[in-house]
Amino acid sequence: MTYTLILLRHGQSEWNEKNLFTGWYDVPLSDLGRTEAVRGGELLAEEGLLPDVLHTSLLKRAIITANLALEAADRSWIPVKRNWRLNERHYGALQGKDKAQTLAEFGEEQFMEWRRSYDTPPPPLADDSEFSQIGDPRYADLGDDAPRTECLKDVLVRLLPYWEDQVKPDLAAGKTVLVAAHGNSLRALVKHLDGISDADISGLNIPTGIPLVYELDEHFKPVVAGGKYLDPAAAAEAIKAVANQGRR
Amino acid sequence: MTYTLILLRHGQSEWNEKNLFTGWYDVPLSDLGRTEAVRGGELLAEEGLLPDVLHTSLLKRAIITANLALEAADRSWIPVKRNWRLNERHYGALQGKDKAQTLAEFGEEQFMEWRRSYDTPPPPLADDSEFSQIGDPRYADLGDDAPRTECLKDVLVRLLPYWEDQVKPDLAAGKTVLVAAHGNSLRALVKHLDGISDADISGLNIPTGIPLVYELDEHFKPVVAGGKYLDPAAAAEAIKAVANQGRR
Repeated sequence: MTYTLILLRHGQSEWNEKNLFTGWYDVPLSDLGRTEAVRGGELLAEEGLLPDVLHTSLLKRAIITANLALEAADRSWIPVKRNWRLNERHYGALQGKDKAQTLAEFGEEQFMEWRRSYDTPPPPLADDSEFSQIGDPRYADLGDDAPRTECLKDVLVRLLPYWEDQVKPDLAAGKTVLVAAHGNSLRALVKHLDGISDADISGLNIPTGIPLVYELDEHFKPVVAGGKYLDPAAAAEAIKAVANQGRR
Repeated sequence: MTYTLILLRHGQSEWNEKNLFTGWYDVPLSDLGRTEAVRGGELLAEEGLLPDVLHTSLLKRAIITANLALEAADRSWIPVKRNWRLNERHYGALQGKDKAQTLAEFGEEQFMEWRRSYDTPPPPLADDSEFSQIGDPRYADLGDDAPRTECLKDVLVRLLPYWEDQVKPDLAAGKTVLVAAHGNSLRALVKHLDGISDADISGLNIPTGIPLVYELDEHFKPVVAGGKYLDPAAAAEAIKAVANQGRR
């Protein structure tokens, strides 16, 4: 008896396209992103991997990716749970900034530390910034705990309770679980699942729109480390592209 | 203190377009239906009527209508609950049949009895029919209680527990509730809310894609009988068209 977990990073967003740091800012998918999402759902259907339940973040790029993928896989009717704990990493003061410009302004070392360090968050985002989510009704329950910046470690810490309390019980019930989320919330989850070290996680990139399937044993450990992409060739190509972001 | 309930009948489906009885058969929206759904969401946004929670049936024409409307209203992130009790009326042996042909074959009286009688269901649909939902995993929990045909009274009987246990508590919590459903499940709900008689309900039609807003008092009774359509002129026009179905 194994459990089936499908991770799906949202398709390209309008800000991915413009090479801006996004974080919790709620930007829509680009046209390419919508196409990627549909393709992701087609891959699920082709493999006969039909989700029984969906978990998403509260950000539209993940939600619409899931909507489009499930429509393509003819599974729009499955139950949905949404939670801020699956949100992208909050990028602090970098939200809304151009990646290439940030690289030029702060230099390679600082840029890569903010992007890839496990436990160094960028400076916090001011509450009165146009890119802040303070005051957004969807996060009202968080009160003063709403993050103003996060490192990857922060993401893992706030994601784990949701994994334990909401996702694992669905898996334990024998359901095929689809998690539609973000580059960094999925990296945090993969770090946890595969037991990747704080140092090694910086080298791991997850491509957009290609389902990543984990078979998990009874202890929720991957049967095959790293899981399996449904389109391995496209995934390998996309991972290279993600790694080069900010360098064009 | 009043509660706000928004009812949204799905946009035109591919079978509405072809003039076929649909019921529980899971047909997609037509292109017009998708446009109607987006327009429904735009109407909500224009009126500042922002849903806090969504309830849908398990049928894709209602689910995709809600997805498109919420995307247009920028509320994709709200919680979603789905339940078969919001499904369209099961049309029994008529599912998959042409409305005009059924009218010609069985005559005006039988046709109108099946369409509009409160408590006379059409003949049951055979389990081995290509239009049957017996064996569909989304209804597995229903077991032998899965309907093979329904009259409007049957719809109301199976809808009421969901209204009481799931929708009313959301309203009582002060949430603006969006129910995305079907011509007959919404007619049943409106019958209950407005206290419409078994005889009079046959004359009530609900147009596709135009939000119908009810303000409810503390006893969940409408402050204004019949609620308010967000686009009253379009609603009046569409109601006339629905009443003439099968007659073209």
